[in-house]
Amino acid sequence: MEKTITVLPGDGIGPEVMKGALRVLKAVEARYGHQFNVTEMPIGGKAIDETGFPLPSETLEQCKKSDAVLLGAVGGPKWDGMEKRPEQGLLQIRKELNVFANLRPVKAFAPLGDISPLKPELIENVDLIFVRELTGGLYFAQPKGRTGNEEAVDTLYYHRNEIERVVKKAFEIAASRSGKLTSVDKANVLESSKLWREVVNEMAKSFPEVEVEHMLVDNAAMQLVRNPVQFDVIVTENMFGDILSDEASMITGSLGMLASASVSEDGQGLYEPVHGSAPDIAGKNAANPLGMVLSTAMMLRHSFHMNDEADAIEMAVQEVLNANYRTRDIESKKGRISTTDEMVDQLIYR
Amino acid sequence: MEKTITVLPGDGIGPEVMKGALRVLKAVEARYGHQFNVTEMPIGGKAIDETGFPLPSETLEQCKKSDAVLLGAVGGPKWDGMEKRPEQGLLQIRKELNVFANLRPVKAFAPLGDISPLKPELIENVDLIFVRELTGGLYFAQPKGRTGNEEAVDTLYYHRNEIERVVKKAFEIAASRSGKLTSVDKANVLESSKLWREVVNEMAKSFPEVEVEHMLVDNAAMQLVRNPVQFDVIVTENMFGDILSDEASMITGSLGMLASASVSEDGQGLYEPVHGSAPDIAGKNAANPLGMVLSTAMMLRHSFHMNDEADAIEMAVQEVLNANYRTRDIESKKGRISTTDEMVDQLIYR
Ligand SMILES: CC(C)[C@H](C(=O)O)[C@@H](O)C(=O)O
Ligand SMILES: CC(C)[C@H](C(=O)O)[C@@H](O)C(=O)O
Repeated sequence: MEKTITVLPGDGIGPEVMKGALRVLKAVEARYGHQFNVTEMPIGGKAIDETGFPLPSETLEQCKKSDAVLLGAVGGPKWDGMEKRPEQGLLQIRKELNVFANLRPVKAFAPLGDISPLKPELIENVDLIFVRELTGGLYFAQPKGRTGNEEAVDTLYYHRNEIERVVKKAFEIAASRSGKLTSVDKANVLESSKLWREVVNEMAKSFPEVEVEHMLVDNAAMQLVRNPVQFDVIVTENMFGDILSDEASMITGSLGMLASASVSEDGQGLYEPVHGSAPDIAGKNAANPLGMVLSTAMMLRHSFHMNDEADAIEMAVQEVLNANYRTRDIESKKGRISTTDEMVDQLIYR
Repeated sequence: MEKTITVLPGDGIGPEVMKGALRVLKAVEARYGHQFNVTEMPIGGKAIDETGFPLPSETLEQCKKSDAVLLGAVGGPKWDGMEKRPEQGLLQIRKELNVFANLRPVKAFAPLGDISPLKPELIENVDLIFVRELTGGLYFAQPKGRTGNEEAVDTLYYHRNEIERVVKKAFEIAASRSGKLTSVDKANVLESSKLWREVVNEMAKSFPEVEVEHMLVDNAAMQLVRNPVQFDVIVTENMFGDILSDEASMITGSLGMLASASVSEDGQGLYEPVHGSAPDIAGKNAANPLGMVLSTAMMLRHSFHMNDEADAIEMAVQEVLNANYRTRDIESKKGRISTTDEMVDQLIYR
């Protein structure tokens, strides 16, 4: 198959982990006889430096006409306090591509049991996925801004349609997995959560095979630590999803392991690791490339329906971990520390 | 000393744990020669049942004219879907008493090390305190409501003054402890967080002895699990504080252990455990009374300046845990399960 991919390496460790992902893609091309036409474009801080804008229109156009988009990470202290911020590029591209559903799987990797802050018996069989609303709520709604020096406002607004489409996605995913869906809200305080809960309850009628549970966000934050194995699919609004999915990354022991896929109604997909640009270790060949590589596997599976190829990558990650190859963030007593490039070498040789 | 206390037992396990707290107060009266004039008033679901309102004006008046208020917990499935909700009583009393700073200490209890989901070496020396803004933000700001069936909105609004007073409180607490303050926000996305950060940076100039750090809320949710001992005082807005403090309760192993104090500018104080009304175990003499009892100790210390009395209660809690008395939520292999009343008996005999 032939596919066009726009690649947005971004800032900090973004370019390093992206380089790794592209090497893995080359290996997939060779082994399975595909052709991936890759175009690299700037976003975030790099784009601000080059063009003055965190999401230049050329970058956006290129993304829109490709089959999928890979994104590294954006941001860094260099752009702190500037009027234009790298993160705006990330938020804009999510909005412009209309990728309203952000899928973040969290799976315990057996060989990483020792690095999780949670007790091993609690994380053993964890295999859950967040479906985070990504293009609405506090991140985008108006009014949003300052009134002089004294006041500031953000708006947590949702239209029923915005809730419906992401909740439907979550139900579909739940139906294809264990059939259990947890909807997280704060319905005892927020009006938007009451609407959210209504929509979930209505949608539930169309998915009789899915068991639905509502959980308040404060309780969810607790339950994710107390007993994460109770969850299968978790659907929630943008800000709650941001907080809870980062918290849940600790189940795997490191944010560096986590992949994400952001999808739109018409199948457009933006694939990015959950980790940030980690400016402190950027350029040192020390970053964990696995979150980016696993995001690439998600692209192959969800956007290109290349299930064997995605399986092969995920299996290689498992084997590399089993063989005790580790970047510093997932350090173990059993092995020495590998560089970003060495981790990718190991993946490719498998 | 003579003090008047308004007691709001509330719903679910509220009355049971409050009964325990009042027995402890009686013991303090006897031992230290104080007189506590206690008036019990309805709030929450019970108040809805009796008067039609979650916070009847008689209850509010009584609270306003007393030296401190003790609150159990409110809410329960009985009032689900009703127009008036028990939680409104809780939110109203916080607002009416103007208790803008909610202090939630989280301390690892050594004998409870085995019940925390976190690895023992991570929680050993944890001793942190949340200062949560309690009367603003998404909980209260307008507009808040529905537009027909289709749209819902909540407003995350802060005025500089609202931020200043709670941040000042947090700086004062930090100065009296280790001198380290972590301010949690989402300044890369929210305008209200940018204002929050500005206020923190300005206030920092008046507290040169306090070391200030800013942390994004998603990172904070992760760090609280990854390495909680890094924190001393954490200050944050209302909703973030709700989520993060419940998450952090898992460090102690149970929400049932945690106390809170909500204070106003003029010293008015509302003291309540962090746990909810736990309707599933209500009326069974099974609830953990320690969160309520420790909240009572906070009242003695903060509102009445009775430090010895508060110390004595906290020491008794420590001893009872050391002696392996446990309610079900903090069950250990070493002891049998005690009832709520038995736990209180043990406290009083010490
Ligand atoms: C960088 C930031 C704007 C972003 C977000 O909050 O969505 C990040 O934390 C994420 O989760 O992808
Ligand atoms: C019951 C609820 C309204 C309340 C809150 O969200 O503040 C509770 O969760 C708390 O933290 O005291």
